[in-house]
Amino acid sequence: MNQNALVRQLDLSVEKPSLSDTASDWERLGRALRSTLNDQPLEATLTALRNLGPALRRGEWNVAATVADTGTTWRVLAVEQVKQNKQAFALAIDLGTTTIVGELLNMATGVVVASELAYNVQRCFGNDVTSRMMHAEKPGGLEELRQKALATLNGLIATLCLQVHIEPGEIAGVVVAGNTIMMHLLLGFDPSTIRREPYVPVTTVFPLLDAAKVGLDVNPDAPVYLFPAASGYVGGDVVAGLLANPMVDDDELSILIDIGTNGETVLGNRDLLLACSGSAGSAFEGCGLEWGMPAQPGAIDQVWVDHGRLAFHTGGNASPRGICGSGLIEALDSLLLAGAINRGGQVNLDSPVTINGETHPEVVIAQAGDTSDGRAITLRQADIENLIRDKAALYAGSRILLANMGMTFGDVSSISIAGNFGQSLNVDHAVRIGLLPDIPRERIKFIGNSSLAGARKALLSSSAWRRAMQIASSITCLELTTESAYFDEYTAALFLPHTDLSQFPSVATLDKRIQ
Amino acid sequence: MNQNALVRQLDLSVEKPSLSDTASDWERLGRALRSTLNDQPLEATLTALRNLGPALRRGEWNVAATVADTGTTWRVLAVEQVKQNKQAFALAIDLGTTTIVGELLNMATGVVVASELAYNVQRCFGNDVTSRMMHAEKPGGLEELRQKALATLNGLIATLCLQVHIEPGEIAGVVVAGNTIMMHLLLGFDPSTIRREPYVPVTTVFPLLDAAKVGLDVNPDAPVYLFPAASGYVGGDVVAGLLANPMVDDDELSILIDIGTNGETVLGNRDLLLACSGSAGSAFEGCGLEWGMPAQPGAIDQVWVDHGRLAFHTGGNASPRGICGSGLIEALDSLLLAGAINRGGQVNLDSPVTINGETHPEVVIAQAGDTSDGRAITLRQADIENLIRDKAALYAGSRILLANMGMTFGDVSSISIAGNFGQSLNVDHAVRIGLLPDIPRERIKFIGNSSLAGARKALLSSSAWRRAMQIASSITCLELTTESAYFDEYTAALFLPHTDLSQFPSVATLDKRIQ
Repeated sequence: MNQNALVRQLDLSVEKPSLSDTASDWERLGRALRSTLNDQPLEATLTALRNLGPALRRGEWNVAATVADTGTTWRVLAVEQVKQNKQAFALAIDLGTTTIVGELLNMATGVVVASELAYNVQRCFGNDVTSRMMHAEKPGGLEELRQKALATLNGLIATLCLQVHIEPGEIAGVVVAGNTIMMHLLLGFDPSTIRREPYVPVTTVFPLLDAAKVGLDVNPDAPVYLFPAASGYVGGDVVAGLLANPMVDDDELSILIDIGTNGETVLGNRDLLLACSGSAGSAFEGCGLEWGMPAQPGAIDQVWVDHGRLAFHTGGNASPRGICGSGLIEALDSLLLAGAINRGGQVNLDSPVTINGETHPEVVIAQAGDTSDGRAITLRQADIENLIRDKAALYAGSRILLANMGMTFGDVSSISIAGNFGQSLNVDHAVRIGLLPDIPRERIKFIGNSSLAGARKALLSSSAWRRAMQIASSITCLELTTESAYFDEYTAALFLPHTDLSQFPSVATLDKRIQ
Repeated sequence: MNQNALVRQLDLSVEKPSLSDTASDWERLGRALRSTLNDQPLEATLTALRNLGPALRRGEWNVAATVADTGTTWRVLAVEQVKQNKQAFALAIDLGTTTIVGELLNMATGVVVASELAYNVQRCFGNDVTSRMMHAEKPGGLEELRQKALATLNGLIATLCLQVHIEPGEIAGVVVAGNTIMMHLLLGFDPSTIRREPYVPVTTVFPLLDAAKVGLDVNPDAPVYLFPAASGYVGGDVVAGLLANPMVDDDELSILIDIGTNGETVLGNRDLLLACSGSAGSAFEGCGLEWGMPAQPGAIDQVWVDHGRLAFHTGGNASPRGICGSGLIEALDSLLLAGAINRGGQVNLDSPVTINGETHPEVVIAQAGDTSDGRAITLRQADIENLIRDKAALYAGSRILLANMGMTFGDVSSISIAGNFGQSLNVDHAVRIGLLPDIPRERIKFIGNSSLAGARKALLSSSAWRRAMQIASSITCLELTTESAYFDEYTAALFLPHTDLSQFPSVATLDKRIQ
């Protein structure tokens, strides 16, 4: 039994009343709870109180209570006779602009019993947060977006429950990490002011809401914990990522880069956190690319050059269906190595792996005969330019954060790259395309979906959830569009790896060898 | 503007954001609220946050916020641009077994703008709390009772709103005082254990619920403050009555008697409160009597003997429709004086005002020709016995409380009688029938509906609401059915005024005069 979690199930032995002790059922339950819980005030839901009397007597004064830490109170969500032996489940959710990932945890063991990824159905109103915000300004648009988010989430919840044969009503708590705009759209808050100077959100802290109020199909009384944000563009997903990252407890400086639809970078340590954000990274999530996809079975997650030809590996060794983040990074590097593109990203039509596509040159990663639907999987000229713009923006963001503290990449003890890539990504590839700086490779870690990891961590620890509040309020946000130096850094990075090769000495050496 | 109330409307001037101060709208509102509110944490409803951004900008950073004190937080219920100039209203409700009384308050002024009385529709399942609890044990019975309570309350709310031309949604807070069983039935809590030894309720403290969760047709986010109870039979109505009574701040001992369906008596002062309850008093509310009614227009509220005949007065000087509490008390005394009944309560058929009714002797209070529907208004033999049983139970209850502290009525500095009587009641009548003890008359006060007064007081003062919690937890309850002395006291009091005339010296003197 996990005794530190936000949502806990406790087996209780309650004292039977007598004429000499006529305290109410609720008071008696309270006495039993106090033996395990700290002195936060106790409160109960209507449902719990409605079931309390019968449960105590049917269970002969032995009951299981499901209890949630609301931050200021212990909320008793359910009381059942022990022999029913139901377990408490809870959800950790990463609510992304492109993809939504959910994990179902058994709160008795703390174990993830099911996980699932879904595309955010809001994508029908645009791929990035800006187009979503624009849609929200249309009449009825905000409610449409809210309903799409809920439809995706509730579909995901239904799938997770099916996987382990539980009812959605058995889910007693939900933690959601998402960017500030996704949170606004989920709750129906007007995001229009985030889009315009001075970029002010309605709120960066979110009330603890009942699932029924949010519209989630779980136990209607389940508390929904929404990660606090730092600003309109540095959201709860980043805060969750930081919560899961040792850098917030470290003396040395580290960088966390969250490569997603709305790529964010944080530089800091236990004393100080400096963050920025840009519409950067969605291409590495596969968004806006003809053949992009998340790291799922059938995603090309490794690409290499074998005797002058491109070779690849797919997740689950399935027939290729598209290319995920790690595959895209390796592809860019391999295309460069194979001479299929140049350092500016231009496709070389003389290469044996390139073709003249319908409108533009393309590089063929998987031949038509090798794919699941008989169509060749390619990277188009525009896809490659997209990827280069995103990696330039991410690199430039880190440089600006460092410059603000008078530092360079050499001063950083570790760089964590979060995102939905494949797990097998080779750091060298990411450095050789200039996505990551040319520092000792052991300092660079790919950490997967750290937003989800933070949500899971909070679910399993009340104190972690409280720490998230501190983290959110201690972040200083830099607005890149007002930093004139940013545009110069960005432009300089629009090459593979960079216009300034002195920043990439190991790549420069390699370049000489291959050219 | 009432600045101490549980629910407040505050006019706020909020600082406009800029690139150098990009705090969220909610944070800015919080800064403005802090200038008026203490340092309880702030929270907001979804509705308030959804309207916050637009309201701030449309109102050019001047808004009206409706804020409720939840005991641990300030909850922002609504934010509107100031020029809409809506006022906040709130409800004080006395949820009685027989009658439900509501008062609508304008929270800006603290003034009662409308009040209304309704019969509790639950009466179709029985007049007293025991029959209600028995119905609750039938399949579907509890939900039926809950719906009847809600139907009555929501009808009352609709009527109150119509009176002052507001929408129910403008009611931002509700305080309810009622006995423990009424509270259980309103919330759908199983009351079956209150009816059986050791008489344990599900709870004596009630969660602060949103109106929507309770089922009240007001602002769905309006907090519903439910008065805490002391036990299954000493409820929140008594606690509210005490809150409105100076005895809880006094050094001297006083008695509060709440004459209602479930008559309760409290003896005590600022240091100690001893309470008991019995099914006593409902007859004085008119319940179970052929012609009983609440103190409303058309209710006979005074009865006297004029040249050997009975005379009466009605509320609003309307045609008589029935007899209310004060009329019943005066009638008993006058019937005794006129020789229409004897001290045992037997109707004297030789009296000119008595008739032989269909089944039993009756006393005619109003002739058929004088009433609104052409039927005579009478007190039947059974009605008179009912009244005597109730007054005996109430008197015996006080005696037992006093005996427990080694005291008599002579040690008591004041007795307050709460209930829905007429306002004009003469104390002498109540003493002469033995409802009240024979102590100096200036120590006895009829205070009307003190449960409603307490609800109103709590609504207008956060600190009064907190005081109610202290009062509830400081009451010691005496279970009369386990006190063997109680039955003796009760039996001795089944006379007018009492079998022991030495307890009523002034009445004994009068008796000698009239006999």
